[in-house]
Amino acid sequence: MKEMNSTIKNNISELTKLAKKFNCFYLSGLHQGICKPFLVAGHQVGLVRPDVLKHLQRFPEVFRITGKVVELNPAFRDYQERTSKVAEVLQDLRKENEIFALKGWRDECFEVSTPFHHESLLEMDRSATCLFGIRNYGVSVNGYLYHPTKGLCIWLQQRSFTKQTWPGKWDCFVSGGLAVGFGILETCIKEVAEEASVVGELAQKLVSAGCVSFYFESERGLFPNTEYVYDLELPLDFVPKNADGEVETFELLTAEECVQRALSPQFKTTSAPVLMDFLIRKGYINPENEPNYRYIVELLHVPLQTIYNLPKSDISSNGDVQNLEC
Amino acid sequence: MKEMNSTIKNNISELTKLAKKFNCFYLSGLHQGICKPFLVAGHQVGLVRPDVLKHLQRFPEVFRITGKVVELNPAFRDYQERTSKVAEVLQDLRKENEIFALKGWRDECFEVSTPFHHESLLEMDRSATCLFGIRNYGVSVNGYLYHPTKGLCIWLQQRSFTKQTWPGKWDCFVSGGLAVGFGILETCIKEVAEEASVVGELAQKLVSAGCVSFYFESERGLFPNTEYVYDLELPLDFVPKNADGEVETFELLTAEECVQRALSPQFKTTSAPVLMDFLIRKGYINPENEPNYRYIVELLHVPLQTIYNLPKSDISSNGDVQNLEC
Repeated sequence: MKEMNSTIKNNISELTKLAKKFNCFYLSGLHQGICKPFLVAGHQVGLVRPDVLKHLQRFPEVFRITGKVVELNPAFRDYQERTSKVAEVLQDLRKENEIFALKGWRDECFEVSTPFHHESLLEMDRSATCLFGIRNYGVSVNGYLYHPTKGLCIWLQQRSFTKQTWPGKWDCFVSGGLAVGFGILETCIKEVAEEASVVGELAQKLVSAGCVSFYFESERGLFPNTEYVYDLELPLDFVPKNADGEVETFELLTAEECVQRALSPQFKTTSAPVLMDFLIRKGYINPENEPNYRYIVELLHVPLQTIYNLPKSDISSNGDVQNLEC
Repeated sequence: MKEMNSTIKNNISELTKLAKKFNCFYLSGLHQGICKPFLVAGHQVGLVRPDVLKHLQRFPEVFRITGKVVELNPAFRDYQERTSKVAEVLQDLRKENEIFALKGWRDECFEVSTPFHHESLLEMDRSATCLFGIRNYGVSVNGYLYHPTKGLCIWLQQRSFTKQTWPGKWDCFVSGGLAVGFGILETCIKEVAEEASVVGELAQKLVSAGCVSFYFESERGLFPNTEYVYDLELPLDFVPKNADGEVETFELLTAEECVQRALSPQFKTTSAPVLMDFLIRKGYINPENEPNYRYIVELLHVPLQTIYNLPKSDISSNGDVQNLEC
């Protein structure tokens, strides 16, 4: 079998631990009930941790906090008003310099929208979405090739030491967040050009291959992340060159080296799902060598689109919630 | 982009309806609380519907039914005893000819096990697992090729009109249930040989590519199914020949024709996830042409491994449940 007789040297059951690590909030915090649902225009769009709540309490004109929920003031009429009112609070908090996540202010906005009809509700700086548990979206590219002697090989990047998040950590070939105003494929094409100088005919070979979803939590906040995944088969003689200063270096690894790198503390935890999904789709991690295969595949696709399931009917006219299961 | 500029003629948003259809129990029945958890040796391994419960009530020495759960008599000591006691009840019920699912008796057993440590608890005829909502497992193979003028093409099979389930319906290239005593790859190799005469070097090209999980309900019962997915790129001149009488015919379809076939009532509903996952992994269904892309990807991987989450500690000494969320 192509790729299926490869031996994975060791630690393959360690992949389950890793899948649990990038889903630490999905598997634990989500069910503890210590976070309050965050509502905008009657829709639950996130969750607020107690450490964030204590800051939001100081802005009652913007955030209405009841026993069970945090609600953006429903008097705000539209996208623009919601966006500017939230931005004012975030700028105040940022000046106080007490919230770790806001030290990584990006001047790049992510959209907050309803999951199904994709109704845009507001936008906020991407450094702040983790404070509200807002679902966020990005693109990730697996740059790979079949080496004549080494078999499946994958290009990884080491992130620049000057990046606000995960500086110096190893990461997928190329990835980027989905900022307001950019399409998914458009973001993908922009990022492969900027991060790895992939342009022209080579960029035309990008193939959409699914998405991964997981719910991570760190000191900075909550990360219900969905990554749109693309594969790019590269020529044997291709060497990526960074064009935007965000990459320290690139390295071509065998599939086995990739597994070991992903399991090491030098790898960006929230990029491991993309790499694991790739190695599963290519048959390198398979039911014959990974005892928790089907559980891992499920942990690569947790139900984020339905996780904030507070129905509108459960919110009474006073903004409080009738029947809450968070 | 390879496969990405293909136009999907119409009905692409119909894929969401289809993904909801094969998850009808996951999205609805699961939360209605009308089914009772089914416990074996202290582990929840399934759910029992009221229409099945009324039959089980007549066998109190085998099934202990309390207000909240159905429990296999904990006095049964081991795999063999549990298996034989359940088989006796099923044979009695089969003779009465009142349960639709048992009319399709197979004389082939599926294993009932705990999800994580894969502890084997008992086995039962595969026609009966849907009466208890037992998780079941199978393998499915996508037989495909890149045609010089038509692009991505996929071989589908029409099921024999004499099959017990879904007779005459269109289905994936090859698939089969995971019976007791057979490995996953082993089942896959056996099925491609029997159903499509794929043997030798060609069978060596099978590539493991993930799994899909979904929770379907029909008149027959409950189907929390996980399919291990394999891809097989076939030569342009290959023509599958059935060797076991279970296939009516095979047909090579373009990707677009496959989408239309999957959406038609002539397609086996519970095989659609494998085909959709394949078309997503190959970039034919992608974020640019399917507005509910990320929701669909999640519906192809619902969390079956954790769906029966009744912790052992919630079961008191009298077999009743302290704190139940079913």
